Amino acid sequence: MADKQRGRFITLEGAEGVGKSTLLPVVRDVLQRYGFEVVCTREPGGTPLGEQLREVVLGTEDPMVAKAELLLMFASRAQHIESIIEPALSSGVWVLCDRFTDASYAYQGAGRQLGMQRVSIIEAWVQEGLQPDLTLLLDASRETSLARTRRRRSLDRIETEGDTFFERVRQGYLERARENPSRIQVIDANPDFESVSVAAESVLCRVIDQWADVLVSTVDD
Amino acid sequence: MADKQRGRFITLEGAEGVGKSTLLPVVRDVLQRYGFEVVCTREPGGTPLGEQLREVVLGTEDPMVAKAELLLMFASRAQHIESIIEPALSSGVWVLCDRFTDASYAYQGAGRQLGMQRVSIIEAWVQEGLQPDLTLLLDASRETSLARTRRRRSLDRIETEGDTFFERVRQGYLERARENPSRIQVIDANPDFESVSVAAESVLCRVIDQWADVLVSTVDD
Repeated sequence: MADKQRGRFITLEGAEGVGKSTLLPVVRDVLQRYGFEVVCTREPGGTPLGEQLREVVLGTEDPMVAKAELLLMFASRAQHIESIIEPALSSGVWVLCDRFTDASYAYQGAGRQLGMQRVSIIEAWVQEGLQPDLTLLLDASRETSLARTRRRRSLDRIETEGDTFFERVRQGYLERARENPSRIQVIDANPDFESVSVAAESVLCRVIDQWADVLVSTVDD
Repeated sequence: MADKQRGRFITLEGAEGVGKSTLLPVVRDVLQRYGFEVVCTREPGGTPLGEQLREVVLGTEDPMVAKAELLLMFASRAQHIESIIEPALSSGVWVLCDRFTDASYAYQGAGRQLGMQRVSIIEAWVQEGLQPDLTLLLDASRETSLARTRRRRSLDRIETEGDTFFERVRQGYLERARENPSRIQVIDANPDFESVSVAAESVLCRVIDQWADVLVSTVDD
């Protein structure tokens, strides 16, 4: 039963304009209806240091080398894990995070072409085994994403990258999903928000119910 | 002769108050008297991004976890290497840097007790073999260092750490020197500035003359 007391770690992933931020409160509400206490957070960010680094990473004028960009993401992540994520999970609180390490694989590993293997070295060093229990990956075409981001506020340094970069990021995410098929659930984010939201909710409930089954059968043994 | 065209990379290291910053122009002048073109730089810092990160690392109020501190240092370093250090060395310019990776071993590896082995993983990832050709390590007792830092401006986040931290940093530096005896030259920084400066100059000239000998004998072969 020890495992039941630990919170679960759920991440939302996807390229710009796929609708992560809109989906986040929907997922939070589902978790709360189940009765779980939930912390919502984001990366880069999530801590005062992380938010400072978010500004540096997304806002700086200075052209940033790919290695520096990756290390900044993981510096923010190290602070986030030790000061927010681990304490929450350990005390039984669920953590819902807008982007986590799959984004580093997609953006720096694939998008910036640092290579997935190089990202995994830093991941192992920082996370020492910590992984999300479930990742909802929103996948949409470039056309859908562009139409959505154009309706928004001004774009940041990474969002202004071109189509080729976006396509590498998208393929990087899908590669992660193929390699982690039980953790990463891909959701078609091309339809309207209502449909995406229903699809995400359905995946989420199915997974949570599976977890409950596992816990119950563990208790029965 | 190809090697002769590449600049040499010289670093100054040591804990707070040992006199690195005072020594830097002395070393630069010696190199310039030899006729070398020299770029003087520092870490963390050395680039617009690095200086932004220097502010974050040394100035933040938020307690920073050790892993984040190390990754920020290396993010700054990755940018510094690709945009300043490598281009200078490749074009035959010498680089004189106030602190480099030995500081990460001393401060985060030993001082913050992350462990030297853990630092070496990130070093290999970021530097891919790049090492200083010569490091002048200024070593002084806590009493000497404290007397000097107290005469200065207000202390930063890392400088306000206590005696135990300082002693770990100092021992971390000396461990690096034992493991890299030909690269790292330890200079007793307890005497007055004039004596330290003469000692550093003498070591520097001896090493440069050895390099010249090697180059000449290579040409003779």
